[in-house]
Amino acid sequence: MNFEITILGCSSAIPTAKRWLSSQWLTVHHRHYLLDCGEGTQIRIRQEKLPMQRLQCLLISHAHADHFLGLPGLLSTMDLLDRRQPLRLFAPKAVLDFLDYYISITGNVFRFELQLQVLEPDFEGLLFEDKGLQCYAVPLTHPVPCHGFLFYEKVGGRKLKKDWVEANHPGVQALKQLKQGKDVCLENGTVILSDEVTDPPAQVRSYGYLTDTRPRLDSVNKYDAVDILYHEATFMEMHKTRAKKTGHSTAKEAAELARQWGVGSLLLGHFSVRYRDLAPVLEEARSIFADCRLAENGYRIILPQTT
Amino acid sequence: MNFEITILGCSSAIPTAKRWLSSQWLTVHHRHYLLDCGEGTQIRIRQEKLPMQRLQCLLISHAHADHFLGLPGLLSTMDLLDRRQPLRLFAPKAVLDFLDYYISITGNVFRFELQLQVLEPDFEGLLFEDKGLQCYAVPLTHPVPCHGFLFYEKVGGRKLKKDWVEANHPGVQALKQLKQGKDVCLENGTVILSDEVTDPPAQVRSYGYLTDTRPRLDSVNKYDAVDILYHEATFMEMHKTRAKKTGHSTAKEAAELARQWGVGSLLLGHFSVRYRDLAPVLEEARSIFADCRLAENGYRIILPQTT
Repeated sequence: MNFEITILGCSSAIPTAKRWLSSQWLTVHHRHYLLDCGEGTQIRIRQEKLPMQRLQCLLISHAHADHFLGLPGLLSTMDLLDRRQPLRLFAPKAVLDFLDYYISITGNVFRFELQLQVLEPDFEGLLFEDKGLQCYAVPLTHPVPCHGFLFYEKVGGRKLKKDWVEANHPGVQALKQLKQGKDVCLENGTVILSDEVTDPPAQVRSYGYLTDTRPRLDSVNKYDAVDILYHEATFMEMHKTRAKKTGHSTAKEAAELARQWGVGSLLLGHFSVRYRDLAPVLEEARSIFADCRLAENGYRIILPQTT
Repeated sequence: MNFEITILGCSSAIPTAKRWLSSQWLTVHHRHYLLDCGEGTQIRIRQEKLPMQRLQCLLISHAHADHFLGLPGLLSTMDLLDRRQPLRLFAPKAVLDFLDYYISITGNVFRFELQLQVLEPDFEGLLFEDKGLQCYAVPLTHPVPCHGFLFYEKVGGRKLKKDWVEANHPGVQALKQLKQGKDVCLENGTVILSDEVTDPPAQVRSYGYLTDTRPRLDSVNKYDAVDILYHEATFMEMHKTRAKKTGHSTAKEAAELARQWGVGSLLLGHFSVRYRDLAPVLEEARSIFADCRLAENGYRIILPQTT
């Protein structure tokens, strides 16, 4: 079962020729989720050859233009390409209103079902769950209401040892019980111990998406620390006053949060265009938290399934 | 004095990884104009290293999403980068309303002056003129009100022969008269013939932008045929019924209009994504009008100044 993240864009409010606006594609157990949708996202999806029409869920963190302006174009394209599958959309009310307004002036009524859900400013907790994951929304600190998203893979059953199954051909009911960790007594009286014929379930993989915000350890530390944390690092310490004033974080602050929460790896993004060379941004963060990378257009993380 | 066109995007409603949505950058006498502004235009401007902040005038042909969704992002970026120079914007009322709505929900009030001018559905004729050109708006046929734009360079004065000026040092007043084609009588009684010391003025260069529309020769043939005509060719003849139904043109129809109007060269664009290979589109048009090209992202035309 896969668990993959693809960075579509990771600039802050202003895009550059190579670093586009906030958007990420998450695939967990072959289900697809889009986190934010800055201008140009539909083009980035095509460039990365991601299955646009199989997108199941779209989450918008907050109502700032660089995080949602790609929404009308993406939905229009899905419709023009004859999408019929429903799409779940979680977004602040202002974004949904904007979409309504767009539809009213263009007459682009989508022929697929948009399952809209307002992300209320004070919402906190389990946002949704499906077969493959649970998604929690956590409150962030920004000039407008903003949410971070934490994704935890759902634990599967124990994994049957292939050799044993092929040699013994147990019935469906027995297989189910063994995967649940239960021992099975066959008709001939033989007892099969689950522990002996199965391996432990895969470890839960997890991902966190925290942008745009001041550092909010208090929001996340009630949840298990994630394997990979994407955290905004719009500024460096030299512009900390500006970071505070505009509701953003410095690279050092992002790294401090990653260290204190105890995440596996930190991925920095949402960079201000003022930093042409991002090496010092990375250096600043690495002085606090070593396992740290810079996001870029097309950066892809494939989290392996481990037992 | 320059006269250049850069194609930023030329796909129809759906962008591809390499062919983005409608937008073109026109530079005439070092003044800059943007024709349409599909999603991602601000990124294309950066990729082509065009002087975004020196843009003086922006024209939106009609209120379909693939022609204006890049507008809020482009204007926001100009503002974030501290633009102070005014920007002229001609657009249908629905587009200006959309922009208003965007501003109201994001609070992105631009600090530079937006000189808005509603492009009324029935407007026809001289839209504006400045030092370097005259721009005419012509009515097109599409499901929503739509305008084409014709740009004619303004004729400059006759061009003084450099050698003669350096040898004779005439006064400012005499130079002005000679450039206007008038002969000059000096104080010593010598008569200087304008024809002898000047060359004829440069030929007027011109460009036409006609998209999205059925062929409308009747709209343009009251104007001089342009040097370069960009005309939409969303479909091929095999989909002519669809072209008629959706208010678009086939490549053959675009070529017929180009031939009948007598333009210099034809540039086809606004291609449907159904044609993966565009060679047959070009072939269809060339069977009618030989001097024909396919637009693509980054295609640039530099019209030389000729006498």
